[in-house]
Amino acid sequence: MKFSGSLLFTTLWFFFVYAPMAHMVWGKGGLLNAGLGGRFPTLDFAGGTVVHITSGVSALVCALYMGKRIGYPKQPMPPHSLVLSFIGACLLWVGWFGFNAGSALASGGLSTSAFVATHFGAAAAALSWSLAEYWKNDRASALGSISGAVAGLVAITPAAGFVGPLSALAIGFLAGIFCYLMVTKFKAMAGYDDSLDAFGVHGAGGTLGALLTGVFAQQVFNPIFGKGKPIGGLDGRWAQVGYQFIGVAFAWIFALVGTLIILKVVDAIIGVRVRDEEEVQGLDLSQHGEEAYNLES
Amino acid sequence: MKFSGSLLFTTLWFFFVYAPMAHMVWGKGGLLNAGLGGRFPTLDFAGGTVVHITSGVSALVCALYMGKRIGYPKQPMPPHSLVLSFIGACLLWVGWFGFNAGSALASGGLSTSAFVATHFGAAAAALSWSLAEYWKNDRASALGSISGAVAGLVAITPAAGFVGPLSALAIGFLAGIFCYLMVTKFKAMAGYDDSLDAFGVHGAGGTLGALLTGVFAQQVFNPIFGKGKPIGGLDGRWAQVGYQFIGVAFAWIFALVGTLIILKVVDAIIGVRVRDEEEVQGLDLSQHGEEAYNLES
Amino acid sequence: MKFSGSLLFTTLWFFFVYAPMAHMVWGKGGLLNAGLGGRFPTLDFAGGTVVHITSGVSALVCALYMGKRIGYPKQPMPPHSLVLSFIGACLLWVGWFGFNAGSALASGGLSTSAFVATHFGAAAAALSWSLAEYWKNDRASALGSISGAVAGLVAITPAAGFVGPLSALAIGFLAGIFCYLMVTKFKAMAGYDDSLDAFGVHGAGGTLGALLTGVFAQQVFNPIFGKGKPIGGLDGRWAQVGYQFIGVAFAWIFALVGTLIILKVVDAIIGVRVRDEEEVQGLDLSQHGEEAYNLES
Repeated sequence: MKFSGSLLFTTLWFFFVYAPMAHMVWGKGGLLNAGLGGRFPTLDFAGGTVVHITSGVSALVCALYMGKRIGYPKQPMPPHSLVLSFIGACLLWVGWFGFNAGSALASGGLSTSAFVATHFGAAAAALSWSLAEYWKNDRASALGSISGAVAGLVAITPAAGFVGPLSALAIGFLAGIFCYLMVTKFKAMAGYDDSLDAFGVHGAGGTLGALLTGVFAQQVFNPIFGKGKPIGGLDGRWAQVGYQFIGVAFAWIFALVGTLIILKVVDAIIGVRVRDEEEVQGLDLSQHGEEAYNLES
Repeated sequence: MKFSGSLLFTTLWFFFVYAPMAHMVWGKGGLLNAGLGGRFPTLDFAGGTVVHITSGVSALVCALYMGKRIGYPKQPMPPHSLVLSFIGACLLWVGWFGFNAGSALASGGLSTSAFVATHFGAAAAALSWSLAEYWKNDRASALGSISGAVAGLVAITPAAGFVGPLSALAIGFLAGIFCYLMVTKFKAMAGYDDSLDAFGVHGAGGTLGALLTGVFAQQVFNPIFGKGKPIGGLDGRWAQVGYQFIGVAFAWIFALVGTLIILKVVDAIIGVRVRDEEEVQGLDLSQHGEEAYNLES
Repeated sequence: MKFSGSLLFTTLWFFFVYAPMAHMVWGKGGLLNAGLGGRFPTLDFAGGTVVHITSGVSALVCALYMGKRIGYPKQPMPPHSLVLSFIGACLLWVGWFGFNAGSALASGGLSTSAFVATHFGAAAAALSWSLAEYWKNDRASALGSISGAVAGLVAITPAAGFVGPLSALAIGFLAGIFCYLMVTKFKAMAGYDDSLDAFGVHGAGGTLGALLTGVFAQQVFNPIFGKGKPIGGLDGRWAQVGYQFIGVAFAWIFALVGTLIILKVVDAIIGVRVRDEEEVQGLDLSQHGEEAYNLES
């Protein structure tokens, strides 16, 4: 994508996809708000619908709209440094504690519970993705375990403040297997080129996590929110799963339509895809005039 | 610089430049202390004068005293890994929250306000440095955006506990452009060899930030400090800009003179510059007997 | 080690070495518990015996049981990237604050004191290891200073909540020199192949730190624990050094015997050492089917 186009895209996307969605889910009186008078109360503790479905689905729309990289999928395009990917995933895992536990907005029992759920979800998904790989390839890779961890972090995000450690293990475990299938089987079948697997991990993991939040949410882990009333399936209130489905469907449609319109606008004004010779040269050089490494120096 | 010389330099510098300066600004009854009876009350929340002006100006003195690297500026000397620079800047940004918000010495409204100001200052400077680059080169680089972010972090440091988010945007925006000009135009004009741009970013950004603190400081963002009285220009108390100027001038002179004397002393005892053959071999090998990478292994 | 074997080993080790040891030292009524009715009250604030002696001694048992890497020690096997080692050590240092200060279980005076002790211990050990290197090789290396920092972090871990900053400096200083001798002199003499120096840093540093905790523990730095009574040698209660010795001896024997039995079990079921051709190919490829870098892409 052109750098200038990506700047305009990001700005428009923030205002017309992210911000309205955040208001609907977290704002007072928002359509999907679960605690302050929304029409369809959707549980989303730290951003499963608002952050991960919107971004993941939008990434899919971009990948489909922009088409594949030159040479994909015939030419192998492995990530250039697994070492840096691994370090990045570790920093992400730690940072996610701030993201999920911080969504309790105060230090206390709820933030601690969200912290623990986050860790358990990520660990279970790292394991289950590795197991799936082992099942398929007879080997578990480091790339698989970190992909799994991120999938687990994504899936536990909407649920973190509503579920206990055992439910977090279940959500993470399912997310690791589901996202593994999405980025291997489904992506190959559908044929889109999503180099970071933003859809397969964030879109798919966010969708699964948001739905499972309806299943596993329990009043006992969020007394402030539930105020003593049942909130999710494990509390016997299965209607929440239906509301979660409505919230998820809304996030999908909103991201699909919004991103498509924004892409059309950006394409008309600036253009989205770089010229072929720029792509072959590499975006570092053609868009930013710099290289990642100067090893000869 | 010789490693042994740098150890002696650092030790002397800590005792004879940093420590007295910290006492003058933050210590009870210090000459520049703003809250506990100083003669020239200088506002410096987390170290604009104490940390960044002293270190940046001292770096300039060192660069001028020691001279250029062999081959500079004819031979290109790009940083060897932009990837690591970027990771480093990200870690720095996160760590700076601890530095600035932590200077409130307690969790609460003031630390939250300093946290937000820090983020806004860094983001605005990353943007404005990139814009300046774009204006000049038709391209914005990753190196530019992280340099801008650090410039913004530096400039917001003295102001963090005294200004609101909009003032932080203004301070950061100005710092990004000012430091960009310092490390491109001014450095080229003056001809010194400051490989990390310690002066252009920390010295210049710290000076600008300290002066702008006097302009933007508002009592409403620091009720503990102001105790209901106006503190800076936006409160109508423009005299503070004058005090900031005195504090800045003092930090400059203190760093200039102190560092020059210390360099003379270190040069006399141990020597500061390595021999030419050691420099050509590289300081990793000649000073520490090790290499950064052993990629053949 | 085979990846499958290492998974089984880790699982068994957690249940049969770590968990019982943690119960004995920190659990109510545990044999070595110092605050809740143990027979031999051993002071261990954040895991000198429980974490570092057990893991370090177990690493030694593994290194002896599995034998040397092919070519060791004739073929040089330097770490491939000092840059990443350095970044890792820095992240570890910061993370360790969470580990040690967090062991106070609440924010307050005790966590602050443990935080400061951790920093002082790490810094002093980085210095003393570098001094030892300088004494021996006329040069201090970056690898040495980070090894020293980790040695200091390990040694201060059991002591962090019981000692003041000056004692932390002393513990760290001694740990840096002691661990330097262990990973240079002792390892060469004993001839085992411990590629990460898990024994020389964690085993040796943990042992020294646990013993010195008995010497330096002072009631004034842990009023909750001591409840006004003397706790360590500096309080005049030298008997604690004897108890520390019992705790250390117990951790050693438990780790030695437990790890040896677990290795035998894993070796019988799965096997522990990879085949020679897998080792020559490298474990990344043979065990995980991936490479750390794809620099040609």
